[in-house]
Amino acid sequence: MTVDRSKAVVLLSGGLDSSTILAIAQDQGFDCYAISFDYGQRHKFELESAKKVAAKAGVTQHIIYQLDTQAFSGSALTGAVDVPKDRNEGEMSAGIPITYVPARNTVFLSAALGWSEVVESYDLFVGVNAVDYSGYPDCRPEYIEAFETLANLATKAGVEQGAPYRIHAPLISMTKGEIIETGTKLGVDYGLTHSCYDPSLEGVSCGHCDSCQLRLKGFEAAGLTDPLTYAD
Amino acid sequence: MTVDRSKAVVLLSGGLDSSTILAIAQDQGFDCYAISFDYGQRHKFELESAKKVAAKAGVTQHIIYQLDTQAFSGSALTGAVDVPKDRNEGEMSAGIPITYVPARNTVFLSAALGWSEVVESYDLFVGVNAVDYSGYPDCRPEYIEAFETLANLATKAGVEQGAPYRIHAPLISMTKGEIIETGTKLGVDYGLTHSCYDPSLEGVSCGHCDSCQLRLKGFEAAGLTDPLTYAD
Repeated sequence: MTVDRSKAVVLLSGGLDSSTILAIAQDQGFDCYAISFDYGQRHKFELESAKKVAAKAGVTQHIIYQLDTQAFSGSALTGAVDVPKDRNEGEMSAGIPITYVPARNTVFLSAALGWSEVVESYDLFVGVNAVDYSGYPDCRPEYIEAFETLANLATKAGVEQGAPYRIHAPLISMTKGEIIETGTKLGVDYGLTHSCYDPSLEGVSCGHCDSCQLRLKGFEAAGLTDPLTYAD
Repeated sequence: MTVDRSKAVVLLSGGLDSSTILAIAQDQGFDCYAISFDYGQRHKFELESAKKVAAKAGVTQHIIYQLDTQAFSGSALTGAVDVPKDRNEGEMSAGIPITYVPARNTVFLSAALGWSEVVESYDLFVGVNAVDYSGYPDCRPEYIEAFETLANLATKAGVEQGAPYRIHAPLISMTKGEIIETGTKLGVDYGLTHSCYDPSLEGVSCGHCDSCQLRLKGFEAAGLTDPLTYAD
């Protein structure tokens, strides 16, 4: 049996990385189904960006998947702990960040896997990156490989279609600068995306959290100007 | 560092199998945290059973985790397709049943994994069984092993505590009769559990769906009487 490789499910947070992988998947000819997650993140503004990015890209379907927040407490991205600001590279790369959310990518990929069986897609795109932000365990290549193995064992499609699942992580070895260069060539409008972890500015970016700093450094490395508005 | 093995997270559907693993985990000395899932199953009565079983067992905490049903369509357990009745063993074991729910155990185990990091438990108990109901891909030993590998790669605890996660599937090679014998010895009150897939009888069991038939056959094999009330 030939596996239908016309459709891809793309995990779309609304940030810079995931907006780039959507463009990459489309450039590779996939008919894209985007899935975003509401997991009680304080920077919920990113979901508005996800909607804009999905609409501009003309995806076939975009769903916002509601996650039960009971299992997501304890992170600076969901709880009462403050998002760290103005950390240097050494601080950012020291261990696992407090913005780590328990088993987040596993929960996201599992939901995407279920949906992919429903829409009959066997190609999942995820914007994980192991270079700039190496602290997250679920952004490493060995993690992505383990999930691909699991996906093919876990599912009806895996059994009946000879392990058809492929987890695509095209950004995994790129620097932020390379990601921005790639997306810019593919026509991504980074002005629609959102990266800031600070929820207090209602969509304006703080410029000081880890995510803003990595983003700004990436644009600088790419020799490009970030189209977003920053608070200072 | 010594891994804290005092607590276990137990996936508790309210059915016969998961009620038995809760008793097994407690018998092994674990302080148990039970997690049940509302995934739009039509036989929602099982969640009431889960509450009763968890309360009787005296678990430390019991949560009902709400899953977004957008990624769960297409199964006889969640959709408009009728639950099959009065199938013989040959029919039941032919391929993957229409009661298959896309990536269900992966979604359940991922949520449980996230919660386990929050409560600081590294032992997850799941009542999968590969003998009586071999049609589900996510009930096979190789699937459980793959998830254990993933759990240790995916998490902060996995990285910082040297792959502490253990996925316990003590029923995986047991017949339904052996499961019932084991649970009975451990004092499980099977009168509190619920197995029937038919939602129309409001908690009374139909006796004809695959789940009821396997249950009844199991009690017969164990030489015991099922305490549940059946419709006929």
